[in-house]
Amino acid sequence: MSVLKSKAVILRGVGEYGVEEVTVDPPKAGEVRVKMAATGVCGSDLSAINANLAVIYPLVLGHEGAGVVESVGEGVTHLEPGDHVALSFVPFCGTCYVCEHQQPNLCRVGRSAPGTMLDGTIRIHKGDEDIFTLVQLGAMAEYIVAPVASVVKVDKAVPLDRAALVGCAIMTGVGAAINTAEVKPGSTVVVFGCGGVGLSIIQGAKIAGASKIIGVDLAENKLELAEKFGATDVINPEGKNIVKEIRKMTKGVGADYGFEAIGNSVVMGQAYNATREGGVFTAVGLGKPGTNLEINAYSLPLSGRTIKGSMYGSGNPPRDFPMLLDLYQVGKLNLDDMVTQRYSIDQVVDAFDDLKANANARGVIVFDEALK
Amino acid sequence: MSVLKSKAVILRGVGEYGVEEVTVDPPKAGEVRVKMAATGVCGSDLSAINANLAVIYPLVLGHEGAGVVESVGEGVTHLEPGDHVALSFVPFCGTCYVCEHQQPNLCRVGRSAPGTMLDGTIRIHKGDEDIFTLVQLGAMAEYIVAPVASVVKVDKAVPLDRAALVGCAIMTGVGAAINTAEVKPGSTVVVFGCGGVGLSIIQGAKIAGASKIIGVDLAENKLELAEKFGATDVINPEGKNIVKEIRKMTKGVGADYGFEAIGNSVVMGQAYNATREGGVFTAVGLGKPGTNLEINAYSLPLSGRTIKGSMYGSGNPPRDFPMLLDLYQVGKLNLDDMVTQRYSIDQVVDAFDDLKANANARGVIVFDEALK
Repeated sequence: MSVLKSKAVILRGVGEYGVEEVTVDPPKAGEVRVKMAATGVCGSDLSAINANLAVIYPLVLGHEGAGVVESVGEGVTHLEPGDHVALSFVPFCGTCYVCEHQQPNLCRVGRSAPGTMLDGTIRIHKGDEDIFTLVQLGAMAEYIVAPVASVVKVDKAVPLDRAALVGCAIMTGVGAAINTAEVKPGSTVVVFGCGGVGLSIIQGAKIAGASKIIGVDLAENKLELAEKFGATDVINPEGKNIVKEIRKMTKGVGADYGFEAIGNSVVMGQAYNATREGGVFTAVGLGKPGTNLEINAYSLPLSGRTIKGSMYGSGNPPRDFPMLLDLYQVGKLNLDDMVTQRYSIDQVVDAFDDLKANANARGVIVFDEALK
Repeated sequence: MSVLKSKAVILRGVGEYGVEEVTVDPPKAGEVRVKMAATGVCGSDLSAINANLAVIYPLVLGHEGAGVVESVGEGVTHLEPGDHVALSFVPFCGTCYVCEHQQPNLCRVGRSAPGTMLDGTIRIHKGDEDIFTLVQLGAMAEYIVAPVASVVKVDKAVPLDRAALVGCAIMTGVGAAINTAEVKPGSTVVVFGCGGVGLSIIQGAKIAGASKIIGVDLAENKLELAEKFGATDVINPEGKNIVKEIRKMTKGVGADYGFEAIGNSVVMGQAYNATREGGVFTAVGLGKPGTNLEINAYSLPLSGRTIKGSMYGSGNPPRDFPMLLDLYQVGKLNLDDMVTQRYSIDQVVDAFDDLKANANARGVIVFDEALK
C-alpha cells in the first residue's frame, strides 16, 4: 500500500484554518484507510476552531463522515476495500471499565491519545511536518486513516452523505432521546436548541412515540426546521419566562422529558426547570469549561427529577448506526432534509460561515461529485 | 365514636416544643384514627423544630410511626379496628399527573394542605385551640387521625416499633437504593452520611447485591454502625480529599452509585464527583433552601453521569411497606439493630438531644409499654 495525496482542512491556530495538501500513510495494524465521500460541518469543529475544545496544532478537522474503505491494516478481517463505512468519533477499547459496563460511548482511550492514532503515532504528514487529527479521524479530508474501532460498516443502499450524519448529530440527538432519556410513547418533550443535534432529538422523540414535542430556539428558521422534523409546537423564548410558558403548554406540570442541545449552563437550568417533577432532564450540549449548572439543592430530592448527561447519545455505534440507517430506509428517520447545503472542500470557509449564521440544519462537505 | 384524650408533642415556635394534652376528633370520611404504638425521631422533625422546614404553629410533630386502627371513617372498607398499620408521610390522591404516572411519592395533595387534613379541616384541639399536624399525621401522639391514603396495613407478626421505621428512614433509604438508583448486583456504592437514612441506603445496596459499599461519615460511631448494616468499607473524610480517596477505593474510576443522605450541597458535589463516569448519583438529603448543587456544565454531558433526586425512596407505600417488612421477616433487612434507643413520650427532649448528638441509629418513642 502506498502513501496517498489528499486535500485536508487543517487548523493551525485559533480561527486559522484552510485547505492544504497532505500525504496519508497506509493503515497500520487495526486501522483502515478510507476514501471519504462526505463529512458534516458540526458545531464541535467550530469549537475546535475557536479553541472552546482543547486541541493541538496543526490538526485536520472533521469527525462526522462516511466513505469507502480503500485499504485495511493487518488483523482487520471484518472489513474490505469497497465497504461503505460511517465514522464514530469515540473509538472503544472494549476492555476498560466503562466498555466492560456496556458504555462504549464513554471510553477514554481515544481521549487519552489527543491528535494521534491510538498507538500515539501519526499517519498524516506535510513534507516533514506531522499533522494531528481530531478524535483519531480528521474527517475533513479526501483520505483518512482511522482505528477500526472508529469505523462501522453500513448498507451500500444508503447515500454516503446521509450515512455521514449518523456519526455525530444523529447518534448524539436521536440517541439522547431513545438511549439516554428513553422517551416513552405518549409523553411530552421539550427541546432547547434546534440545531443539528436538537433536530435529531426531536426526531428521536417522534420515533419513540412522544405525543407533544416542543422546540425552543431564538432563530425563527430553526423553529421552522423543528416543525419539519417533528415538533408539534415551537416557541421563541425571546422576552418570555420560558419555564412558565413550557409549563402552560404541558398541563401546568412541565414536560416529562427536557433536553438542552446548546451547551449553555443558563439554558440548561431553564430546561431542567421546564421538566416536570419526576421527569427526566437530559443535558446534551457541552457547556463552556468552567461554567456550572446550578441545581436547587432543596428541590432536587423533593421534586424527584432525574438529570442525565448524554455523551454521544449513550450510543454503541456498531449496534446503533445500522439501526439508525434502518429507520432512515423505512422512512421513520428523515436524513434527506437534514442536509440543507452541500459544499466542496474548497468551500469550507463558506460552510463554517453558514454554520455560524445558523443557515443550515446540517451542511455537508462532499468529496464525491456524485453526491453534490 | 367519641372524642379521645391524647398526649402529643407540640411545636409552638422555633425550638419550642413539649408534651401537651389534646383531644382527638373521630375520623371523618376517608380517614382512620390510630392508637399509636411507636414513632421514630427523625431529622426532619428536628428540621421542623429548627424551622429548616416550613411549618405552621402550633403543630403536632412526628411522621414515622405505626400503631393499631382504633376506628375508621365513612367509606373506609379495607381497614378495621385492630388492624396494624404503618404511616406514610405522603398521602397520594391517585388522580393527579404524577399519581397517574405511578409516582405517588411525588403527589402534592398533602403538601397543598400544610398542617391540616386533606379537606382543610383539623382533628386535634386543645380546648378551643386548633392544633395543626405535620404532614397529615402528627405522629408523636397517643392517638392520631390520618387520611386512609397515609396508612398501610402491615403484618401483625412485625413488632410495631420496627414497622414504624418503614414509614420514613427505611422507605427513604432502602427505596433510594432499590427504586431510585436501582443498584445492580456486583456494583460499587458510596454513601455520604450514615444516619438513619444513610444506613438504610447501605442496607438497600446490600440487599440489591452490591459487592462494595463504602460508608462516609465524620462521626466514628456512625462508621461503626455503617459496618454493622452492610458497609464493606468506611472512611472518615476529615482532612482528606474524599473524592480522590473514593476513586482509589473503586479501581480508580469512582463508584457505580453515589448517594448523599445529609442535605449539604457541598457534600452532594463530592458524592457526585465520587461517582464514576456513566454512574448514577442519587441526592437523598434535602439541601437547605437557597443552596445550590453546582455541576460542571462541560463534564456533565461528557461524563455521561446521571443525577437522581430521590423523594421518599421513589416509594409506593402500599406496594413497598409490605415488601420491606417481608425482607425484615426473612432476615434480609435489619430493623432490630436500627432501634438503638426507646423513649417514652415524656422523654421527647432527651430523644431530640440524642438525635442532635448523633447518638442513635434510630431513636423511637414508644407509647405501648410492651415495646419498651
